[in-house]
Amino acid sequence: SMNPDLASERQTASFSVEKLTALLDGGTEQTRIRRAVVEAIESDPVFSRENQYFQTQNERYEAAVRKAVHLQKKMHEMGWTENGPEYKYIYRALSGDVAFLLHRVFMRSISVLGSDKQIAKWIPLATQHKLIGSYAQTELGHGTYLQGLETTAVFDTATQEFILNTPKISAMKWWPGDMGRSATHTVVFAQLYIHGKCYGIHPFIVQIRSLQDHSLCPGVTAGDIGPKMSFEHIDNGYLLLKNVRIPRENMLSKFCEVRPDGTYVRQGSQQINYFTMTTVRISLISDEVLTPLMKACTIAIRYSVVRRQSKLKPGEQEAKILDYQTQQEKLLPQLAAAYAFHFINDYLQELFNRGYREIQRKNFDMLPELHALSSGFKAVITQHCTAGVEICLRACGGHGYSLLSGLPSLYTKILASCIYEGENTILLLQTARFLIKCFMAANAGQPVPPSVTYLAAVKHGKCPAKNKLDFLSPDIYTEAYQHVAVRLTSSTSAKLQDLIQSGVKKHDAWNQCTVQLVQAAKAHCHYIAVKNFAETVEKLETKAGIQKIMKHLCDLFALHGIFSNTGAFLHDGYTSAAQMDMVTASYLDLLAVIRKDAVPLVDAFDFTDKSLNSALGSYDGQVYQRLYEWAQRSPTNQMSPAYERYLKPLLHNTLSKL
Amino acid sequence: SMNPDLASERQTASFSVEKLTALLDGGTEQTRIRRAVVEAIESDPVFSRENQYFQTQNERYEAAVRKAVHLQKKMHEMGWTENGPEYKYIYRALSGDVAFLLHRVFMRSISVLGSDKQIAKWIPLATQHKLIGSYAQTELGHGTYLQGLETTAVFDTATQEFILNTPKISAMKWWPGDMGRSATHTVVFAQLYIHGKCYGIHPFIVQIRSLQDHSLCPGVTAGDIGPKMSFEHIDNGYLLLKNVRIPRENMLSKFCEVRPDGTYVRQGSQQINYFTMTTVRISLISDEVLTPLMKACTIAIRYSVVRRQSKLKPGEQEAKILDYQTQQEKLLPQLAAAYAFHFINDYLQELFNRGYREIQRKNFDMLPELHALSSGFKAVITQHCTAGVEICLRACGGHGYSLLSGLPSLYTKILASCIYEGENTILLLQTARFLIKCFMAANAGQPVPPSVTYLAAVKHGKCPAKNKLDFLSPDIYTEAYQHVAVRLTSSTSAKLQDLIQSGVKKHDAWNQCTVQLVQAAKAHCHYIAVKNFAETVEKLETKAGIQKIMKHLCDLFALHGIFSNTGAFLHDGYTSAAQMDMVTASYLDLLAVIRKDAVPLVDAFDFTDKSLNSALGSYDGQVYQRLYEWAQRSPTNQMSPAYERYLKPLLHNTLSKL
Repeated sequence: SMNPDLASERQTASFSVEKLTALLDGGTEQTRIRRAVVEAIESDPVFSRENQYFQTQNERYEAAVRKAVHLQKKMHEMGWTENGPEYKYIYRALSGDVAFLLHRVFMRSISVLGSDKQIAKWIPLATQHKLIGSYAQTELGHGTYLQGLETTAVFDTATQEFILNTPKISAMKWWPGDMGRSATHTVVFAQLYIHGKCYGIHPFIVQIRSLQDHSLCPGVTAGDIGPKMSFEHIDNGYLLLKNVRIPRENMLSKFCEVRPDGTYVRQGSQQINYFTMTTVRISLISDEVLTPLMKACTIAIRYSVVRRQSKLKPGEQEAKILDYQTQQEKLLPQLAAAYAFHFINDYLQELFNRGYREIQRKNFDMLPELHALSSGFKAVITQHCTAGVEICLRACGGHGYSLLSGLPSLYTKILASCIYEGENTILLLQTARFLIKCFMAANAGQPVPPSVTYLAAVKHGKCPAKNKLDFLSPDIYTEAYQHVAVRLTSSTSAKLQDLIQSGVKKHDAWNQCTVQLVQAAKAHCHYIAVKNFAETVEKLETKAGIQKIMKHLCDLFALHGIFSNTGAFLHDGYTSAAQMDMVTASYLDLLAVIRKDAVPLVDAFDFTDKSLNSALGSYDGQVYQRLYEWAQRSPTNQMSPAYERYLKPLLHNTLSKL
Repeated sequence: SMNPDLASERQTASFSVEKLTALLDGGTEQTRIRRAVVEAIESDPVFSRENQYFQTQNERYEAAVRKAVHLQKKMHEMGWTENGPEYKYIYRALSGDVAFLLHRVFMRSISVLGSDKQIAKWIPLATQHKLIGSYAQTELGHGTYLQGLETTAVFDTATQEFILNTPKISAMKWWPGDMGRSATHTVVFAQLYIHGKCYGIHPFIVQIRSLQDHSLCPGVTAGDIGPKMSFEHIDNGYLLLKNVRIPRENMLSKFCEVRPDGTYVRQGSQQINYFTMTTVRISLISDEVLTPLMKACTIAIRYSVVRRQSKLKPGEQEAKILDYQTQQEKLLPQLAAAYAFHFINDYLQELFNRGYREIQRKNFDMLPELHALSSGFKAVITQHCTAGVEICLRACGGHGYSLLSGLPSLYTKILASCIYEGENTILLLQTARFLIKCFMAANAGQPVPPSVTYLAAVKHGKCPAKNKLDFLSPDIYTEAYQHVAVRLTSSTSAKLQDLIQSGVKKHDAWNQCTVQLVQAAKAHCHYIAVKNFAETVEKLETKAGIQKIMKHLCDLFALHGIFSNTGAFLHDGYTSAAQMDMVTASYLDLLAVIRKDAVPLVDAFDFTDKSLNSALGSYDGQVYQRLYEWAQRSPTNQMSPAYERYLKPLLHNTLSKL
């Protein structure tokens, strides 16, 4: 039976939830396929996550391996293929709780970096799981700076082999998933040496465990790096190599080859490598970042209409906590951000597809812009969504802090997205470098990519808003965002030039501007996100109330950004203090408007109870029953030896006399 | 051997680390006593936390009970008593990893709320551990709003007993520590009913488990609430009561009594209850909030001078990551905040002691101010320190994400401090209510408590700073903070009055102002923290370089607050855009200055390696060795059944044919 406090929220929806779900999925057919995949996965007990919060790291790992192996069978049964329409929904349906993700990266590396011959040899073996692959790039001492990797691969012309070594402790490979306990092979990135000369980082296929009995190969030391904040299901590993010999053919050689006599030959373009990183950064946004924020919003908002605490009006019953302005101000901007980033993800995907088509025609012109946008948005979205999940967790008070709410594990996992695939600060500085370059080019009258043409048009006007309703005009707020992005880029560019002209060395000057460069990069992404949301709303059908509610969310997303960062908009007087008070008024008004549709807006994300795995977020809102029933099953309710060993002697005063 | 990159940082300290440690401790004698306690605890293997990151929740609980029992013996051996000078260092030395904390709250409740007779009966039993106590206030459905608690205690004149019930699932007691598995008794808060009339919430001593065999008493259902984000060592519990009868004498009756005939008698003042909450909120700041931030700073800053990544200057070796401006901007403001909050903690302690003396003289005048300050600072400090620990974690990249860094467990534990002992938003609104009341009183010419007299002096001037060096003047920035606090309080007060005058009902008007009221409360606390830091620096000896470095930190704390919240200072033109650029310049300059003393500044916190329990933060800086050695001991490096069960059949292609 549905909690009446939740049921009443659904009766007053201003729009069709089903239509919004279809919009998010990209069409009703996509919704149908997604639901079929979810149904097939969730009805199979092998994929259950029911006991996840009670399991040790070892148990989580074993379950993830079991699921990965079972998934092969399931796909066959269901007729799902890697190129079929169902494939992209499987990972989400499993909530990522599965092993062998790095096996897929292993395969992709070979496909992208390997010669045709290498592809023909290794891909079938990997596809049939005659080996389990991993990807060994990061070292204990090196993550961000790949040129600094210390693992070496020395070519031995006599035996036609590479000799691999991790010569220092800091050179040890560290973090690769699937490598700690599962993998038999891995792609090792190492400095290539031929006749004593270093040719830089290259990828090598190295077998690390026996295919017969899984024992470590000679010269190989490997294991699991131990407990982490999350990812208990993944065996992130370490790898030491001592004079491990591999055949010449094992260097991935699409772009570079070592001939038998030791001649080094470079062929083709390496620009494609940027494109690979871009692919990964864009692809992680949806599954690893947006989905957790959407789940957190679903849990926190459903809980906030079921939880009643204190009284708004004396004499009435206790109020739903979502009726408090402070609770709305915590949760609703996160909901708006989830939608904003969903639409920017569509934008990035489309840009990426366009870039891909161009690259296939050997046109690499879009790469710098794609790299800048994917880096910047990876950083901004992971940062924003991580903060959003944490806000949702805290907004549920004590119950949010219970693992059974589902929120702690969403938080501890999403946090990693700020670090992996490019640490966020580093990525924002890459975006900033692109911005500064384009800003200078634009001001020198040179052409720049479409997303940054606005940098050329520095306007010194003032925000034209006259009353609080004007701030519900996308033109007004989009222009304000644009103004801030231009100002931050141009002022930092000026500071940089001033420092250099005053004699500071270029790299020192850059370092002294990095805090402000990061601000500029964020402002750029924020502007594009707002603009894209507004344009998306513009294009929506006006039917079924969808456009109207999306417009409210777009306004909220934009005004929340201004309200939370007023200084940037006030700084040069573009926005006046009186206008800022209008922003605040409109922003607070919007909270009360969107609050009415809050539950339908999270229902549209269409998560099942099993996928939320949360005592607070279930569709029927029976929070307290679930918490109680679930807690009773906890291993902490089994008999503990602590009583006989410590408590009984203490209480019976039979501890050895003090 | 000490990592030379860390050693070099210590050689150039601008001040005496030992003298700063003594300042933080409150004198060299305090430092000596603290170190003796730490030495005694850390040399005893029973108190080891070495395997903590590898243990399950059950193992953590058992260890915490073992430690609590062993601590009794240890204290006796060492001659430590609850009133001795060593006592306050024990909990810190154990890093809080010990059971029976709620047993102490149980005792304090009886001491504060019990009659002399009750104290004489129960305190000796509890002191000798003839029972284990807990404190059962929070219910599944009620935390913040105590009047809403649903547990009932009905007086039965016939038997002279109270009959206790948790009549609905939402009335179940939920969260009390030590209750899930250990406690034999607890103080239950319940609605008192006599002859059908409700007299509100009262405390009752209830036995829940047998003193003979620890089985649950008749009518009692209790257990552990299961896994949480941290606090694995604590058995937070649930409790259901069904017609549990306790004698009339078990209602704690210092302030209220039920006579045998059912007459209800109220005696004494209940204002003292506020004082109890104040005590708890102030006392948790040091151990539960400041210590974790100081530890996180120690770990992250030591790591940041040992970790080298990328090159600042082409051709040179890779740079220490603390030499990057962005890394300084992450960590050094957290370091400054740790010092700022250490000094505000001293301020609150002193205020509290003064308040306590007054109360003993039956003068309750200080209570509202103490309540407002302790609530506001509890919220502001827990919020700030939690964010600070998270920043430290992220600033260590992947290695910060390993449990072995110590940072994840610091974060997941400190996060709870934002929720327990008063949820932060609720607390800030209590501070805001006090501010609004005082603001209106002050403007009506009535006297107000010392900490808020500044609200009467609304000045409409401008910030007088002429260049960036002026922003290193405490007068300049303290006044700016004061201005913002007054402005936010007065503008929100005005909005509130306007709404009420326009016909909005008082409670609705209040709700519509709460987002801004929270801002005002934060601004008030921030102003007092800056002012107190500046005054503390003023009073320091000028010797030994301590005053100078503390002045830098005070400046950084103040300017970071402005830099991160420029809108509040720009809003009404008190600070101009040009002045804000000066703030930014001075702020960024300070980062480079303080960076030089960063390691000595964390060394002064004087944490041992055992207390940090971190592979990244050790005194000798041998990060990579420690990570590797520690990881090898992880249970995830034991043989897993996953190979035989799943991997082998997959690799050998002996899975049942697909």
